[in-house]
Amino acid sequence: MKKQGNENAAPLKIIPLGGLEQIGMNITVFEYGESIIVIDCGLGFPEDDMYGVDLVIPDVTYLQENIDRVKGFVITHGHEDHIGSLPYIIKMVNVPVYATNLTMGLIDHKLEEHGLLDSVVRKVVKFGQTITLGDFHVEYIRTNHSIADSAALAIYTPQGIFVHTGDFKVDYTPIYGDAIDLPRFGELGKKGVRALLCDSTNAERPGFTPSERTVGSTLRTIFEEHRNSRIIVATFASNVDRVQQIINIAHRFGRKVSVEGRSMVNIIGTAIELGCISVPEDTLVDLDALKNYPEEQTVIITTGSQGERLAALSRMAGGTHRKVQIKPTDTIIFSSHPIPGNEKAVTRVINELFHKGADVVFQDTHVSGHACQEEIKLIYSLTHPEYAVPVHGEYKHLIAGAKIARQMGVEKDNVFIMQCGDVLTFDSEGARLDGQVTAGAVFVDGLGVGDVGNTVLRDRQRLADEGIILVALAMDGDENIVAGPHVETRGFVYVKESDDMIRDIEDVVNQKVDSFIGSSAKDDEEHSRLKAELKSDIKTFVWKKIKREPIVIPVILNIE
Amino acid sequence: MKKQGNENAAPLKIIPLGGLEQIGMNITVFEYGESIIVIDCGLGFPEDDMYGVDLVIPDVTYLQENIDRVKGFVITHGHEDHIGSLPYIIKMVNVPVYATNLTMGLIDHKLEEHGLLDSVVRKVVKFGQTITLGDFHVEYIRTNHSIADSAALAIYTPQGIFVHTGDFKVDYTPIYGDAIDLPRFGELGKKGVRALLCDSTNAERPGFTPSERTVGSTLRTIFEEHRNSRIIVATFASNVDRVQQIINIAHRFGRKVSVEGRSMVNIIGTAIELGCISVPEDTLVDLDALKNYPEEQTVIITTGSQGERLAALSRMAGGTHRKVQIKPTDTIIFSSHPIPGNEKAVTRVINELFHKGADVVFQDTHVSGHACQEEIKLIYSLTHPEYAVPVHGEYKHLIAGAKIARQMGVEKDNVFIMQCGDVLTFDSEGARLDGQVTAGAVFVDGLGVGDVGNTVLRDRQRLADEGIILVALAMDGDENIVAGPHVETRGFVYVKESDDMIRDIEDVVNQKVDSFIGSSAKDDEEHSRLKAELKSDIKTFVWKKIKREPIVIPVILNIE
Repeated sequence: MKKQGNENAAPLKIIPLGGLEQIGMNITVFEYGESIIVIDCGLGFPEDDMYGVDLVIPDVTYLQENIDRVKGFVITHGHEDHIGSLPYIIKMVNVPVYATNLTMGLIDHKLEEHGLLDSVVRKVVKFGQTITLGDFHVEYIRTNHSIADSAALAIYTPQGIFVHTGDFKVDYTPIYGDAIDLPRFGELGKKGVRALLCDSTNAERPGFTPSERTVGSTLRTIFEEHRNSRIIVATFASNVDRVQQIINIAHRFGRKVSVEGRSMVNIIGTAIELGCISVPEDTLVDLDALKNYPEEQTVIITTGSQGERLAALSRMAGGTHRKVQIKPTDTIIFSSHPIPGNEKAVTRVINELFHKGADVVFQDTHVSGHACQEEIKLIYSLTHPEYAVPVHGEYKHLIAGAKIARQMGVEKDNVFIMQCGDVLTFDSEGARLDGQVTAGAVFVDGLGVGDVGNTVLRDRQRLADEGIILVALAMDGDENIVAGPHVETRGFVYVKESDDMIRDIEDVVNQKVDSFIGSSAKDDEEHSRLKAELKSDIKTFVWKKIKREPIVIPVILNIE
Repeated sequence: MKKQGNENAAPLKIIPLGGLEQIGMNITVFEYGESIIVIDCGLGFPEDDMYGVDLVIPDVTYLQENIDRVKGFVITHGHEDHIGSLPYIIKMVNVPVYATNLTMGLIDHKLEEHGLLDSVVRKVVKFGQTITLGDFHVEYIRTNHSIADSAALAIYTPQGIFVHTGDFKVDYTPIYGDAIDLPRFGELGKKGVRALLCDSTNAERPGFTPSERTVGSTLRTIFEEHRNSRIIVATFASNVDRVQQIINIAHRFGRKVSVEGRSMVNIIGTAIELGCISVPEDTLVDLDALKNYPEEQTVIITTGSQGERLAALSRMAGGTHRKVQIKPTDTIIFSSHPIPGNEKAVTRVINELFHKGADVVFQDTHVSGHACQEEIKLIYSLTHPEYAVPVHGEYKHLIAGAKIARQMGVEKDNVFIMQCGDVLTFDSEGARLDGQVTAGAVFVDGLGVGDVGNTVLRDRQRLADEGIILVALAMDGDENIVAGPHVETRGFVYVKESDDMIRDIEDVVNQKVDSFIGSSAKDDEEHSRLKAELKSDIKTFVWKKIKREPIVIPVILNIE
């Protein structure tokens, strides 16, 4: 293969600020001379041990430091892990946002919620259209995925054409819109693709991901078998094609449909408005109006397929939903797979539904939105890139993606597994990893952005596992205890049954303070030392007694 | 079918004290007149939100209240969820323990660790042997499972024969010992089985569970393909048949084997001692001696297949294992599936191993130890019970087990899905749920048994999510602040960057106290009111400011 790259051009840099070695928080910088574009701006989700963290957003220090060069956000599709950080990041880096029709509808909704709609320039892009952003030309190419209007990007630069697949699958018979534009990938391959950044989420899985349409035929069978039940279907709010299929099947069986759950109502509302879902007349009714129809002629499409505690289905299962009570005559379909980490939460909801006597169906009712090995090979075979950069997924997925790239003829040294903040530079000499920029995760907890860091999380983990003991006492200038010690605990032991333990701790404090009385130095330093020793004595006592290590906070108030 | 049951006999009661609606903590009471026997005595494992809880053991108040009637523990096999609570419960209910050879070896080890070996009567039972415990006769029947020496029980009572499968699968070609004694199940069926208590763990899965032997042939292929690697195999310590196969294959390829990880060393040591594993001469070497052999001629069998943070494999992956460093030439085989809830932990370890450049194999290297639908049907078909009580598993598994029972001809009203503490009574009239005894989970945290309850857990969850603010001040008899307010936080915000927030909280306190000065009442009641209001004011302030709800503890010290 002819070596690509331009001797007379500046180097092209690719810098992922997120999205590698983790699921979610996709954001990748392309940089050429005075032009920077940003592909996607997604949310991350807190790990189990990030107690209390609501959301994770990328650290965009690098963009802030180079704000004058940033030309825009180029968004591939409307999933949270690709658009969710926009409202937070746009406050720091307010540049134009480019996206397809439905994607922009969802972005608009987000910006509106954050009161930002009027302050952001937004431009809807059509498939096949090429936008110019500084030195970059970016072409939107139609793909298939588990949300409509998903795009791959061909990024034209003086250092060659870079193809970013976004999240994709190959669906020859999609529900809405056309199949992925495979011929265009072929044309680009003929022109010469410098590097392919390919979705690796399913790179471990052999074969092909089945068409979304296969789910429809399973659902039809289930509807057929449950003609006398009210049917409740839980699925991803953003899977508008799935919702379209459920609506179509419900209509065919003469059922009315309601959608329930905040994100479901929002996204489906937007999708209908933008024409991405077409609803047969008189099929969709308000949840309140659904009770006017016989139950076996109704369907509720709801959020909660991941067992999220506050989602509509979880509330129905737990008996706390204000409008929907689960009955033994109900059939609940999980049209979803648990995302890794959510298995137990989903099982909890299923158990609760069974407890209420309902029938629950959760097998063969979902297909993935990501390309399996043979589809990934197809894209390599069409684009025939000189370099490969597997993207999207944890390290093991990237490893699997890299393996496929090599199988498809990309030279070993031309396959790059990147980490967040890495700088991959392309020039006429070739490509190499040569540098690092600031990158990482910023935690959002309530309204606080970035005020919960690793120290706070470590304390939270310790508090969660061991609890806290607090000891307060007041001392006068002669180092006599004039009030206290007062001991309080939280999350440590069941206090009512641990009187002895609390008294023992008070004794430990008194003994320590006694040995300090009459000591010569009476300054703050001395109090610091006393506090440190109180802490250590209490810890030792507790560890010996019950092998626990709570956080201990001694407070000494000085009475002058 | 002829109705079974005896008019002249007392009723027979089955009372599960654990093991239903949860995985683990299996313990079931059989009661007839003055005789009580207890089937298994297992550990439960803490749910994700049981912060800091190490173990869960059953509440055996009912056994303690009826201690004079309890004849013994009848143990089916040596897994933690069937024997793990014995050392705790035996301290409260010290009665003889019955088990097969390997099972008793593992129990002995446990009792020894707790210094209880000399104070407990233990009797090893052979397959086919029947033991008499008061009015009960209990026969041990050989089954297959993911640990050797597993048994089903035929419990002979004046109200008929009750068959309890224990955990089982049907393996026609087991590694150690014989295949499950299907003919005996058939004989019992011909005699007439009153009720079948059948393992439901895999009742949702169609078909048959493959033989343990199939794993061997996969492992052989992997060994064949990785002749130049050191091979590290992670599996369940208790799966002695798996370990036997790995040792055999290693031997065939001329490799030396070490076992690593505390439970692996213990269990395999016990299994070798008792003849449940046979090791070819000179194959097993100490981990320290392994470095005397070329790496490609060695195998390490290790714990950590579930991604447990402190297990040997996790320490190797994290680079903190003192004796084993992972190298790019290593091949790590996960001969296991993640137990639901462990998926992310396992993935973390896999990613770390890939990061160190090693090859990781985790597909087709495990089979389940539990019967799938067709095997469960086989047992029903052989025993043809009048009643069915699905056991082992969460509610959804029991539902699936009940479905199979009905398909196999058990009358709908004769299938009972029980909850912990339920009393199922069999007499000449039939069977019915009629009563409840105390049952539940007791948390073990460190050395504390039962001192962490729901209140403490709620506090721990709150501390984990939101952190804690503590305010201490000293007041004199005139309600003047003479020291403080002193504010400390943990797990709340990053203090160094939140000076303003802390000062604001101090202001909130000062304002509130000011409004109290000069107030007439000066007693403890007044201070309680002040504390309540301080708490409320701080909470309101923090919620408005950053939408968080930390625990707030105000401490007021009285200076006389």
